[in-house]
Order: sequence, then C-alpha cells, then structure tokens
Amino acid sequence: MSDHSPKRVLVLGAGFGGLTFCQELSAPSAEVTVVDRQNHHLFQPLLYQVATAGLSAPEIAQPIRSILSDQENTRVILDEVKEIRLAEKSVVLQGQTVSYDYLVIALGGITAYFGHPEWAEHAPGLKSLEDAVRIRRQVLLCFERAESELDPAAQKRLMTLVVVGGGPTGVELAGALAELTRFVLTKDFRRIDPALAQVILIEASPVVLSNFPQELAINATATLRAMGVDVRTERKVRSITQGAVELDNGEVLEAETILWAAGVGASPLTRQLGVELDRAGRVKVNPDCSVPGHPEVFAIGDLVSLMNEDGKPIPGVSPAAMQMAKHVAGIVSRELQSRTVAPVESRPPFRYRDKGSMATIGRSAAVAHFKEFQLTGFAAWLAWLLVHVLFLIGFRNKLAVLIQWAYSYLTYKRGSRIITKI
Amino acid sequence: MSDHSPKRVLVLGAGFGGLTFCQELSAPSAEVTVVDRQNHHLFQPLLYQVATAGLSAPEIAQPIRSILSDQENTRVILDEVKEIRLAEKSVVLQGQTVSYDYLVIALGGITAYFGHPEWAEHAPGLKSLEDAVRIRRQVLLCFERAESELDPAAQKRLMTLVVVGGGPTGVELAGALAELTRFVLTKDFRRIDPALAQVILIEASPVVLSNFPQELAINATATLRAMGVDVRTERKVRSITQGAVELDNGEVLEAETILWAAGVGASPLTRQLGVELDRAGRVKVNPDCSVPGHPEVFAIGDLVSLMNEDGKPIPGVSPAAMQMAKHVAGIVSRELQSRTVAPVESRPPFRYRDKGSMATIGRSAAVAHFKEFQLTGFAAWLAWLLVHVLFLIGFRNKLAVLIQWAYSYLTYKRGSRIITKI
Repeated sequence: MSDHSPKRVLVLGAGFGGLTFCQELSAPSAEVTVVDRQNHHLFQPLLYQVATAGLSAPEIAQPIRSILSDQENTRVILDEVKEIRLAEKSVVLQGQTVSYDYLVIALGGITAYFGHPEWAEHAPGLKSLEDAVRIRRQVLLCFERAESELDPAAQKRLMTLVVVGGGPTGVELAGALAELTRFVLTKDFRRIDPALAQVILIEASPVVLSNFPQELAINATATLRAMGVDVRTERKVRSITQGAVELDNGEVLEAETILWAAGVGASPLTRQLGVELDRAGRVKVNPDCSVPGHPEVFAIGDLVSLMNEDGKPIPGVSPAAMQMAKHVAGIVSRELQSRTVAPVESRPPFRYRDKGSMATIGRSAAVAHFKEFQLTGFAAWLAWLLVHVLFLIGFRNKLAVLIQWAYSYLTYKRGSRIITKI
Repeated sequence: MSDHSPKRVLVLGAGFGGLTFCQELSAPSAEVTVVDRQNHHLFQPLLYQVATAGLSAPEIAQPIRSILSDQENTRVILDEVKEIRLAEKSVVLQGQTVSYDYLVIALGGITAYFGHPEWAEHAPGLKSLEDAVRIRRQVLLCFERAESELDPAAQKRLMTLVVVGGGPTGVELAGALAELTRFVLTKDFRRIDPALAQVILIEASPVVLSNFPQELAINATATLRAMGVDVRTERKVRSITQGAVELDNGEVLEAETILWAAGVGASPLTRQLGVELDRAGRVKVNPDCSVPGHPEVFAIGDLVSLMNEDGKPIPGVSPAAMQMAKHVAGIVSRELQSRTVAPVESRPPFRYRDKGSMATIGRSAAVAHFKEFQLTGFAAWLAWLLVHVLFLIGFRNKLAVLIQWAYSYLTYKRGSRIITKI
C-alpha cells in the first residue's frame, strides 16, 4: 500500500462509543468502516422501558445507516466479528475479512453471571432489544397464565417478579414493574388482581444504587419501598433454577419471572487480543486508550479498564464511552493528517469528567447527582426526562418518546403491551 | 343449569367481528368470554405498513383486555381453540374447556396457497404481526446482504422483490416497497443503489384491483407503473421455490423476497363443524348468520360464505365482519332478554351495506369508490387516511400513527427500520 492511498479506519461496534467516534473523526480522506451485528443503534438507558411495555422497540432504536448517512466516507457493514488479528491488522467477520490502518474496538459489554452461566437460562439480562422484547413477553404472559390458573400457589409464583441487582438498571426495572402491575394492568383482569403481584429486588449492599451518594441511595431505597417493591438489601443469591431463587440465608423465592441486573462483563472477544485483562475481561488500555503494544489499536467504552487521574476506575457508563470516543477521534484525526502513528507516550492521556449520574424510579421519582448539587423526587425525574430526551438520537424518536411518556403519564395506560412470538 | 343462572356467551376470535360483537351485545346479566390466541387486536388494514417499515408493530395493535376493560361481564382468555364440540355446546382450548349457551365463531382467515402449501415457506403471506415483522426483517436484510455481495447476479436477486396477487393487499405492499426502495433507503448505502431495486407485481387478471370499478383499476395499474413497479398482469404463478418464481409463460423471476398476497381461506377449524363449506372452507351460514342445525351458534366475518340480497357474495372485508357482528349481537341480545332461542326462520336476515372500498398505492395516491362517487390520486389518499385514522381503535394509536405518517410524509425517513431477531 503506497503512502498516498487512503487510510482505512475500522470501528467495531456502533454503540455510544463507536458512533461518537465516527461523528467526531475529522478525516475526510480516510475510508471509515463500521461493523455491528445489529442494523440499529440502541438507546440503552431506555431499554428497561421496552421491557416493561412503556415504549415500543423502534422508539429507542435508530438504523445505524441513517445516523451515518451524511458521512460519505463511512461504510456500514451488518456482520458479526469473529476474530481480531492484531498482528495482521485485520478483522475476520462472518462474511468477509477487513484490513485496517487504525482499529477502534467499541464492542461494549454482555450480561455476566459471575461464574454461573447456567443462570442465564432462568434469569435473562437486559442488553439488547431482543432481551427487552423477550422480557416483556414473559411478564405479560405470566399475568395471562395467572388469570387462568386455579392453583393458588402456582398463581402466586406467576405473579412474583424477582429482580437481582440494585444498580441503576435493577432499580429502574423494579420501579417500572411495580407501576406496570399496580396501575397499568389493574383494570384488565377479572379473576386476578395484578396489584397483588410482588416485585422483589435483591441487592448485596445495604442500600440500592450503592455507587450514588449515600443520601440518594437511601432516598431511592425508601422510594422503591413506598411503591410496594420488596427491597431485600444485604442479600446475595446462592442459586437460580427455573422459577426459583435461593438466597444466602436459605430462603427460596418462588417466582416465574427472574431478571438479572447484577453484572456486566466485557465482550468475550477481548480474550483474543493477547493483552492484559481485568477480572471482568476488560482491556487494560494505555492512558491514551490504545491497546498495549499496538498504538494503532484503541479500545473504548464498557470493555475498557482504565483509572482516572484521581486513581478511581472510570465507570462503564455511556458518557465515559462517548468521552473516550471523542478523545480517540482527536488522536486519530491528527495522526491521519500528519500521516504518522505517534508514539503512545507523546499522546495526551484520557481524562474522564464525571458530569453526574441519575436513575429513575418510577412515574415521577428519580435521584440525580451532579458536581454541584443533588436532586430527588419529582425534580430529579424532570431532570432525568430532560437529559434523556435531549440525548435521544433522531428527531422522530424524541417526539414519539415524549408523546408516549406524556400519554402514559396522563392516563397510566401502556401502549406497547403487545405480546408477539417473534 | 337452572333457567335463572346467567347465560354464557362464548366468542372465538377478537378481530373486527369478535370485538364488535362484544361491544354491541347488550346483555349485562350474561357471562361473556372472548378467546384469542393473541393478546392484541390487530388493525389488519395497516399491516402492510409494518411489513414495509412505515409503522412499528404496537402502533397497529391494542391489548384486547384494554379494549374490553370497561365491559365488566366480559372475560378475556389468551388461548388457542383446539376443538369446537357443537353437540356438547363446548369448546376445547389448549388449557381448558369452556361451555356456552351461545357461540360466536369469528376466527377469521388464513393465508391460502390454493393446493400448494409448500409455497408458504418461500412466499410468506401477511396476516399477523409476526408475519409483518418477519417480512420487514427479510426485506431489510436483503439490502444489507446486497451491500456486501460481490456477485452481480446474486446482488440483483437480493434486490428483486416479487409480490404475488394484485388485490388491495398486494397493491399496497408493492406501492410501499417501491417507495421504501426509491426514497427511504437511497441515502443509506454506499455500494448499492436501492433505487435500482425491482418490485414486480404478478396478477392473473388484466388489471390490478379487479374487484374495483374498471376505471379505478386502470388508474391503480397506471399509478403503480409510474412509481416504478413492474406490473405483470394476465400472468399466473406456476411454481415457487427458494428465491425463484416461475410464471405460466415459462419465465423465471429470481427474487430473494417473494410475498404472497393472492389468497385467503377460512380458519381450518371450520372443517370440524360438520356443516357445509364452500371451496375456500367458509361456512355456508343461514341468512341470519347462524350455523345450519345450530340456532345457538353463529359464524361471522372472513370464515363465512353468504349471499347478499342482490345475489352477490358478501366480500371478506372488515366492514362486512363488523356489520355481521352487529346483526348477530342484536339477535343474541333480544333472545337473552326473552330467554328463548328463537327459530332461525323468525330471525331477521343479514343485509350487507357496501359503503365503498379503498386501496392506497403510495405516499399520496389511492383509489376509492363510494356509492355515489369515486376518487383517485391525492383526494382518494386523503379520504383513505381519514377513514383509517378514524377507525383505529384507541386514542394513543391514532395519535402516534398520525405523527408517524406526517413525519414520514414530510421527511421520507422511516422510523421503524429496525431488524430484530425475535
């Protein structure tokens, strides 16, 4: 390849990290290729709303091609990554092999069961649209079956929902499930009263949202309890089988619906890289986000293990992925212009700026902390709504989501309560 | 059972017929049970929009329980009908057996392949949300594969879409597919030009929409051709295999996407009734819509064969199903009040009032005929839009659908272009 042929930039994954990189990269003469196994970018923070029938699947997803259609030097391939060959500077997909000059690995995370992969079958996680639609179907079908069930014990099991893990996803799921059963489904059944459904949230720490400031964590725990969620803190799961969760105190919770929100790990493809990983399989990258020994390869987002300047680990959240993407896009843009791969030491290190975090608990409650202040209750919920609507990519989705929310806020109906087999 | 115990009315199917019956029945002391194998009522006339990525699935569906939640004597069972036992006055479901005093069979139709069930695998029909989502996935994936395909013949096959059958569904599908390829997808791909995709519509008659007045049928045929659809009239299909349609003149069309819109038949459960059926398996009912020999059993909608007073067969369209439902609800309401099953001869015969029909061809063209006048082009499209939005059940869906349409009309983007595996 001559020095004047266009440089090839390959991006694996079109999540928040991969897409932001493409949008921030300023290299019109480069050939950019994005690979994702889905045709859509997913707005993951709202996935729990699809799982609890608040939103329909297309409302939180946007075709990757549409998002990038104005970037004429960017090509999108719908395919799965099979092998990353760092030595040959190529990536093997199911359908073809793509060579690169620069590689950005932004494949995100997967649901992790901490050494118990057999739990996956009984307690699905929430990472993709498929997961969300499957959970929605499962929850709605349980109530349908409870309505026809004559055995009281079986009926109770069908109407018990356990969420394992009290991080933001677990809290949002438990809150939304409590509302679904208490307000949305109440009028629809004749024999059962969906409001009697039990939503149980299991968390190992003394409070939910243990990464939030203590005051907010306590507030969130109390809010969930006031909504009728049975919050079991300082409890661990010993085993999960079909329809039953055994806790570390020996108690067995019989529940037809068990949802896993307790752990994420890096994409298993990181194990092929031959570089040092942390316990969750995340790549220990250089301070500039490059992969050790390969200055032309970067890893960003949830599959990265990196310390911030204050010595704290950078969290696996979408703002961090987007900030890393922007940082790496800057490095690659400059080097493509000067046509040299700079030594890693000369590149600026990545600095994460924590702009705060928030979690919504229900129809009008949330907790939020920012650098300067904290919010709880309705004010936090409004802030949450504002931030999420602003971040949603694509005009149509913003408007449709707003209308959905306004409507379900006003009427407590849910428009997406549809069970489909595929 | 004593004469004063509540009478049990069992309704099989919650399509337009079954739901209208429940809503029109005036018998507060009766116990009404509705059985459907889906939890949602489907607005079938817009199904082609889901298949062509114009609308998302929940936008044209509404939970049956919500629609009927105000009718307190009505119970909904999500289950599949296995056997109808007219002699015992009971219906066997997968999960239970339900007895009745009055039975209304409103199970609708299925896609029929006229003695070629093996074509079903290669040429899906469009009757359910699952069908629509599967077709959407198939069409969008073909373009994704075409973008990566290097063999020109394979690329052409991936970009050829054949629709068999030029009735309203076939015309609407072909028109929407032509727009999807010509306007929606055009900017999204780098290697292929989706506007070069071929949409071929096969119809045995000399014109499409052959049941419409001739002038409108000619107009529709010309409109489709102007939109780039290759309309092949007076052509029949000889065979369908994976990726290929053979026509009666020996020509073979290589197409990865083949959609079947050429025939509907009655639900196969009609064969269990032991009564006379027509060739399509539809029940030859008495003039009051009751099943011969069983005055307490009615059949309505697409699975009924009945002549109107003018000697013409009543068409299998939703207005006919809804009019039959209303007629039968009147009979049953009166008889429940007087607590006698009247002789069939004394009941009023059903009279179908044809209020006209319409078919949309694209973004701003349609054909419509009413008793007094006909419309084509944009005026017909506006009439079509108005009628369909007015008929959509449930406020939320109406508003969301209107916004979707307004948005896609203004921008030519499609919001529901999401490929999911389930």
